[in-house]
Amino acid sequence: MNSVGVVMGSDSDFNVLEATIKVLKEFNVSFEVKVSSAHRTLERTLNWVNAFEAQGGQVLIAGAGMAAHLPGVVAAATTLPVIGLPIKSGALDGVDALYAIVQMPPGIPVATVGINAGKNAGLLAIQILAQTDSHLKEELKAYRQKMAAEIETKDQAIQEKIK
Amino acid sequence: MNSVGVVMGSDSDFNVLEATIKVLKEFNVSFEVKVSSAHRTLERTLNWVNAFEAQGGQVLIAGAGMAAHLPGVVAAATTLPVIGLPIKSGALDGVDALYAIVQMPPGIPVATVGINAGKNAGLLAIQILAQTDSHLKEELKAYRQKMAAEIETKDQAIQEKIK
Amino acid sequence: MNSVGVVMGSDSDFNVLEATIKVLKEFNVSFEVKVSSAHRTLERTLNWVNAFEAQGGQVLIAGAGMAAHLPGVVAAATTLPVIGLPIKSGALDGVDALYAIVQMPPGIPVATVGINAGKNAGLLAIQILAQTDSHLKEELKAYRQKMAAEIETKDQAIQEKIK
Amino acid sequence: MNSVGVVMGSDSDFNVLEATIKVLKEFNVSFEVKVSSAHRTLERTLNWVNAFEAQGGQVLIAGAGMAAHLPGVVAAATTLPVIGLPIKSGALDGVDALYAIVQMPPGIPVATVGINAGKNAGLLAIQILAQTDSHLKEELKAYRQKMAAEIETKDQAIQEKIK
Amino acid sequence: MNSVGVVMGSDSDFNVLEATIKVLKEFNVSFEVKVSSAHRTLERTLNWVNAFEAQGGQVLIAGAGMAAHLPGVVAAATTLPVIGLPIKSGALDGVDALYAIVQMPPGIPVATVGINAGKNAGLLAIQILAQTDSHLKEELKAYRQKMAAEIETKDQAIQEKIK
Amino acid sequence: MNSVGVVMGSDSDFNVLEATIKVLKEFNVSFEVKVSSAHRTLERTLNWVNAFEAQGGQVLIAGAGMAAHLPGVVAAATTLPVIGLPIKSGALDGVDALYAIVQMPPGIPVATVGINAGKNAGLLAIQILAQTDSHLKEELKAYRQKMAAEIETKDQAIQEKIK
Amino acid sequence: MNSVGVVMGSDSDFNVLEATIKVLKEFNVSFEVKVSSAHRTLERTLNWVNAFEAQGGQVLIAGAGMAAHLPGVVAAATTLPVIGLPIKSGALDGVDALYAIVQMPPGIPVATVGINAGKNAGLLAIQILAQTDSHLKEELKAYRQKMAAEIETKDQAIQEKIK
Amino acid sequence: MNSVGVVMGSDSDFNVLEATIKVLKEFNVSFEVKVSSAHRTLERTLNWVNAFEAQGGQVLIAGAGMAAHLPGVVAAATTLPVIGLPIKSGALDGVDALYAIVQMPPGIPVATVGINAGKNAGLLAIQILAQTDSHLKEELKAYRQKMAAEIETKDQAIQEKIK
Repeated sequence: MNSVGVVMGSDSDFNVLEATIKVLKEFNVSFEVKVSSAHRTLERTLNWVNAFEAQGGQVLIAGAGMAAHLPGVVAAATTLPVIGLPIKSGALDGVDALYAIVQMPPGIPVATVGINAGKNAGLLAIQILAQTDSHLKEELKAYRQKMAAEIETKDQAIQEKIK
Repeated sequence: MNSVGVVMGSDSDFNVLEATIKVLKEFNVSFEVKVSSAHRTLERTLNWVNAFEAQGGQVLIAGAGMAAHLPGVVAAATTLPVIGLPIKSGALDGVDALYAIVQMPPGIPVATVGINAGKNAGLLAIQILAQTDSHLKEELKAYRQKMAAEIETKDQAIQEKIK
Repeated sequence: MNSVGVVMGSDSDFNVLEATIKVLKEFNVSFEVKVSSAHRTLERTLNWVNAFEAQGGQVLIAGAGMAAHLPGVVAAATTLPVIGLPIKSGALDGVDALYAIVQMPPGIPVATVGINAGKNAGLLAIQILAQTDSHLKEELKAYRQKMAAEIETKDQAIQEKIK
Repeated sequence: MNSVGVVMGSDSDFNVLEATIKVLKEFNVSFEVKVSSAHRTLERTLNWVNAFEAQGGQVLIAGAGMAAHLPGVVAAATTLPVIGLPIKSGALDGVDALYAIVQMPPGIPVATVGINAGKNAGLLAIQILAQTDSHLKEELKAYRQKMAAEIETKDQAIQEKIK
Repeated sequence: MNSVGVVMGSDSDFNVLEATIKVLKEFNVSFEVKVSSAHRTLERTLNWVNAFEAQGGQVLIAGAGMAAHLPGVVAAATTLPVIGLPIKSGALDGVDALYAIVQMPPGIPVATVGINAGKNAGLLAIQILAQTDSHLKEELKAYRQKMAAEIETKDQAIQEKIK
Repeated sequence: MNSVGVVMGSDSDFNVLEATIKVLKEFNVSFEVKVSSAHRTLERTLNWVNAFEAQGGQVLIAGAGMAAHLPGVVAAATTLPVIGLPIKSGALDGVDALYAIVQMPPGIPVATVGINAGKNAGLLAIQILAQTDSHLKEELKAYRQKMAAEIETKDQAIQEKIK
Repeated sequence: MNSVGVVMGSDSDFNVLEATIKVLKEFNVSFEVKVSSAHRTLERTLNWVNAFEAQGGQVLIAGAGMAAHLPGVVAAATTLPVIGLPIKSGALDGVDALYAIVQMPPGIPVATVGINAGKNAGLLAIQILAQTDSHLKEELKAYRQKMAAEIETKDQAIQEKIK
Repeated sequence: MNSVGVVMGSDSDFNVLEATIKVLKEFNVSFEVKVSSAHRTLERTLNWVNAFEAQGGQVLIAGAGMAAHLPGVVAAATTLPVIGLPIKSGALDGVDALYAIVQMPPGIPVATVGINAGKNAGLLAIQILAQTDSHLKEELKAYRQKMAAEIETKDQAIQEKIK
């Protein structure tokens, strides 16, 4: 049983979802990854979502570019929380993907993160899982402290630079 | 057997698709209409598309607003030509629907018309059917001549106005 | 102890968040509502978020318009999942709010829903809570079935209209 | 007699239309290609469209960038279905071309595909021709199955990568 | 012989072009007005442009909305200066018309004015005619002085208001 | 005495205006070029415009990027026709310049060409001058024929390529 | 001697600048108001700015819509801080004004506030004046406390509503 | 005691703020620089702002990209004038940052400069300080004259080029 399911419409999206996977590994969360399209392999996508939910999966992350239907189609097939990750590609630089993911009709929400925000997609999944996992919650708090500490370090580097 | 299948994601889209239906009636083309959502009733939508194709249907028209996935989902389920009609609704006035319909990934095209262009969706369906129906082709040419004649009439009205 | 915390930057946002609250009531989820600004009452906002998390709250929903900083500021103050709801107001019709909410920097995600999508903000909160509440999960499935049934009813109404 | 006519406003558009031509060749559909401008050689363009229709041509594909008038002008000169392909060029990256093609006035539709979607323009032409050609229809279904199979292969490659 | 030719694609554009005509009348410039479409009556439009140029016309003004091809098509048919007037209509509020008019390919310029800027279209025509008409030039200078004087009057009204 | 005055706000705009100057040279039109800013050297700009008009100049071309005020400021200082050329620079890729040039208030028009459309700015100036110069008019017609002939040549090259 | 100078390009902008003036009155700051255009009365505008600076004025506020050149032109004529207020008008709803004000070239900044943000323009002027006026600074702090208190009141009203 | 405080959300913003710092050095204004985030180190940011104001600081400059909350959060914590500098980064090229900074709600203004306009942020700070510093005012006037002189030089270079 895996906690997080990550699905992308094309293997060309992997370079963005790599950051998502890195976060999931950092937090030692079990996950599975699937390349499956909302259009080219719709049925296979739906079957995978159903199987993921049936085996006890908890959160889904779907990344897609252009007319990005994958997150919405996944959200239509489950009542698990679905995180939508718009990917920058094509002439519109991801604005099309953002609108196609975030502007879902009433009834089927998708939890959308920023364009190419692979890391935030992973962190949002962790935050959702952390609700019922006090260990994860602690790790999240430590992660935030580490980020804050890094800013202090960067601040010192800048102080040197401007002298 | 109906030649054209018209599907909308919500009955609130009907005020735009009414113009489509009016064109189909004008050209005496057989058609059927379905309210079915890409998200709320995905399976039912797919079943209807499959049945429409199986019974010999020729062209599909799908209208949807916001994160408009319906035309793409319909196109994924059939190799019939699918006309996508973006509908103006919500805060983005239909730009979201346009992008979510026209920017389909390689492999599954949707023949997109303008935002709220219900009449053009119908006419495009007629033009596709007319390929193998010389009677329809004649009617299309007559329709164009009528449009041209109307412009002459409007021109005369303007000549009066500016005197 | 309340499960969901709902915060808005201004009481003028209430007409959108009313749909959120209606959903929370429908699912019998405990919640509290706060009017508090990211700018005019920043400290009070932070205190409320901290108290909400301390008393065992699980999900936060923050709605804001224009340069919508409230969801991001709330997300910065907690590791609970934060749902951001962009509200349509001012000359840019909510595009500013959408960008200011969804485009969060790496490290602090906000789960963004569509512009004015008050109902979806509520449903996403329910879906997150349902992870560990099998009763809520059943109710969500029933809710989806009800939505599907409504589409059938609307379909029949349209069939009458086009006769 | 050729089934598909492909026209571009400038030879600089060829790098996008090459994908269109590749698809037409793959499906063994007869076609002809023309470089002709809506502005610089308007009459020549109209003559070519008329000749194409007269000799029994069935579908037209017109690609253009910036203030892309070519698809609309072609559509005005024929009742054959016209596929409009917006091409990314200039400072606006193809949004100008998209709007100038898809937003046609009532009466003269253009079947618009995505920006730089050369492959989809070709596939849409095939789907239109396949209406009355059961052999083409079979080939389209095989093409879709091949695309689906490719996704499986890509999925396996990703599974290796994330180990 | 008329100096200015004004053409609109639809009589619904007249409410914007009325301001253009008013300016032409104010400056006592001879003009003619035509309703003729780039799509529905393309040949008629081209014939009118040719006749206008042949009879000694000097400047053309073309107004159109949405995928506004009329100014470009007119410009393609003549070497007279063509003023393009984008008209606000449809879901995109005239941005589509602006892009479809101003972004002309190299070789065929259109002198574009603002969206719905009917008055400025007329004034630009006058400024072009005034090059070789010293009387018109004087009148233009007087017109500017009158505008400046009106601002003084408005300034005084505001001074009263803020007391 | 020069017929055309070309002004740019910064020497970094020269790479775009070079195409304008090339056209003016091709048509043997007398011209002068000025680098002068609407903001940094406003008075100098106004003085140059006044001197240009006083010495008998006929058309002005002003190129500028970002918050492009130069064309409007030039147009405010003269009743000669002013051609505005938006230049692509900065984060907004010239959309800011386009809006800042074309959306002039009622009373002071600027004849706007496309973003970075240096060649069209020059050609529009020639078309305006040609009104009263039958020799230039002939040259313009020859120029158009040459453009048309080039398309024939390009067409032949493409025919070779697709074999 | 007045501390703040307020200038608008047209009296139609007054409904937005009224909020600015209300703030200036609330803080008992001396001010003067001018209707003067960057285009129609450029010289008069420059003269007024120079006189305002000469008599000891400290901050300027300039409001304008569409191709809003007034703030930039004012900023070019003085080294006093200039606050630019984009006004919503015309087809682009103020985005044109925002870009035309905020995207100033290097060397001449304009302190831009939000579209139609008349109140914020006034408050920013007060904040600039308060630098050297401890009384004003106290009043600003009181103003902020009043705003915070109002939010508490609104919060209580909402608590009643949701019961 | 430093007059100007410069804060950036990430050290990756330094390449833009370097131009700001260069201006502050040129005018010999005392300043301090801080890397501190509105989200990752909110409290530290607020503490720094308070300390800066307490020690007599006069103007703040905050630069941030994407969902740029830093300038607004700084403005909420002080009544000193805050200059917001939107930074181009991510898929939206700084439009998100511009909207997230300039569209502040009523009550808390941010003096926004153009995207990546690091130099203008510095100059605006100088202009605000110069209100009460006649020496700085003189230097600003000299700076403007130098800019004007540079344009003359550039003009001469262009005159050489076009010969």
